[in-house]
Amino acid sequence: MTRITGKTRILFILGEPVAHIIGSTLLNEHFAGRGIDAAVSPLHVAPVDLPKVLATLRILRNVAGFGVTIPHKIAVLDLLDSVGERGRLVGAVNFVRRHPDGSLHGDNVDGLGFVGGLIAAGVEIRGARVLQVGAGGAGRAIAFAMAEAGAAELTIMNRSADKARELAAAVGRAYPTCRTDGGEPDTAACDIAINTTSLGMKDGDALPLDASRLAPGAVAAEVVMTPEVTPFLAAAAARGCKTVPGKAMLLAQLRAASDLVGLA
Amino acid sequence: MTRITGKTRILFILGEPVAHIIGSTLLNEHFAGRGIDAAVSPLHVAPVDLPKVLATLRILRNVAGFGVTIPHKIAVLDLLDSVGERGRLVGAVNFVRRHPDGSLHGDNVDGLGFVGGLIAAGVEIRGARVLQVGAGGAGRAIAFAMAEAGAAELTIMNRSADKARELAAAVGRAYPTCRTDGGEPDTAACDIAINTTSLGMKDGDALPLDASRLAPGAVAAEVVMTPEVTPFLAAAAARGCKTVPGKAMLLAQLRAASDLVGLA
Ligand SMILES: NC(=O)c1ccc[n+]([C@@H]2O[C@H](COP(=O)([O-])OP(=O)(O)OC[C@H]3O[C@@H](n4cnc5c(N)ncnc54)[C@H](OP(=O)(O)O)[C@@H]3O)[C@@H](O)[C@H]2O)c1
Ligand SMILES: NC(=O)c1ccc[n+]([C@@H]2O[C@H](COP(=O)([O-])OP(=O)(O)OC[C@H]3O[C@@H](n4cnc5c(N)ncnc54)[C@H](OP(=O)(O)O)[C@@H]3O)[C@@H](O)[C@H]2O)c1
Repeated sequence: MTRITGKTRILFILGEPVAHIIGSTLLNEHFAGRGIDAAVSPLHVAPVDLPKVLATLRILRNVAGFGVTIPHKIAVLDLLDSVGERGRLVGAVNFVRRHPDGSLHGDNVDGLGFVGGLIAAGVEIRGARVLQVGAGGAGRAIAFAMAEAGAAELTIMNRSADKARELAAAVGRAYPTCRTDGGEPDTAACDIAINTTSLGMKDGDALPLDASRLAPGAVAAEVVMTPEVTPFLAAAAARGCKTVPGKAMLLAQLRAASDLVGLA
Repeated sequence: MTRITGKTRILFILGEPVAHIIGSTLLNEHFAGRGIDAAVSPLHVAPVDLPKVLATLRILRNVAGFGVTIPHKIAVLDLLDSVGERGRLVGAVNFVRRHPDGSLHGDNVDGLGFVGGLIAAGVEIRGARVLQVGAGGAGRAIAFAMAEAGAAELTIMNRSADKARELAAAVGRAYPTCRTDGGEPDTAACDIAINTTSLGMKDGDALPLDASRLAPGAVAAEVVMTPEVTPFLAAAAARGCKTVPGKAMLLAQLRAASDLVGLA
């Protein structure tokens, strides 16, 4: 619950559609829980209007920043004054800080959120052999973040195999110490298995990978938030694996987003 | 306390400065208390930026409207598609509705608020002899609204006497049934005495009028909100007059503003 005064730092989440957006509610709870005087509202922005809206956000002096969601995460890149290294590598920005001079600095906090969720769950990433399913928006952010956090091996599978190969190659160029591969997975040999696809949201979805072959000491981590326990996590738990739900990523993202806009 | 989701109707209050704005907090409490899913944030808008900000507010589809405060209440008139009669008469707009096609309709709800506050307090305006002190922004709105509500006589005093005379003449043209006068007051003969100046906010302010001469059956009404009981109201109460504080105007304005943006 949020109390908005003339001193409250104002933030937005830009998207289209907006009805499903939960980030504003969660960020407001995050701020309220920490006594941070900030409030976030969704703004329904059509793609054609993004430049105009950003030009206006620059001049509103009580605005601290804004989140960016579907369909603006890539288009926003060209409209900012600076983009952090994570955002540049991923090729998408999901949070932007407005500086007092009106300049806008964006970055991608998806990967920070995912890694933060693993760390909060006590998972050791450095040296780990990681098997990642999915090479979409969340998948790109997570792959770079896992390499940045010291993963020793990263295998990326994806329905569209080309995207997995391209992502693995890009991660390998940015983090040469991480062995990357877009090929066939060795499910039994991985330390951390990650679903970054949307599989598991709908009844009857296939499993993203054969969880029955995971080693009992492996960790299974998920981006899907609803249901909280996806069939993938349930199958991994049945194997004795530690599981990290999509919600862990989300909570750590809230912290990373507040940090980015200077409201931590 | 406000919960903001993707379905919440978003409103703003445009002003400069914004730190002192309390309308957002009060409107949010108003909405929350009635279970209306809407949230209001102040936006710090410099005068030079007002056209640009309005152009952007037109295209944000989850925005229901916005309040307009100092220094934008007059400048905003020329930037709207339509202005209600009250706003045109007063020459200032303080609330704007955004229609789904992006068009903007503004009006002035100050006068509605003041009259609504009197009505809620059981004051009969029709036929009343009114003595009003002040001819600033609030004073203009209140003078037209008192005439619209059926006041029989309206005498307006003001430090700058020209403004009082001009306002009385303008009200008289719009409401010929109301006898208007910008001259000397007959304090003892009025039914409703109104302070629309800022006198009473600061310690040591002069009284807006000699309350000791009010008839005990008269009503004394106030625009100043802090302190809640101004020296003028205290002196009138000592005379046995009924008093209506600035807060009554504010509460009725919240209802009028919600009505205007279709969120009642
Ligand atoms: N927990 C969090 O904080 C958080 C943050 C961001 C996103 N997410 C979640 O992450 C998921 C993916 O989001 P995104 O933005 O990355 O979406 P995206 O860019 O559209 O990518 C979707 C990914 O899922 C794969 N996929 C979709 N349907 C599939 C199917 N039927 N079979 C196999 N693979 C399929 C896609 O494969 P192709 O490349 O072959 O299409 C692609 O790899 C969503 O569930 C989203 O809610 C969670
Ligand atoms: N309760 C509510 O909902 C509500 C709504 C709106 C406004 N208000 C309050 O109404 C008050 C006036 O606001 P406004 O927007 O009308 O301001 P404004 O446009 O600046 O007008 C100020 C008025 O006060 C007079 N005045 C100021 N200082 C004076 C002094 N020392 N001696 C004699 N007269 C003096 C001015 O006279 P001159 O013309 O000679 O300068 C003018 O008539 C403020 O206290 C404001 O907070 C309350």
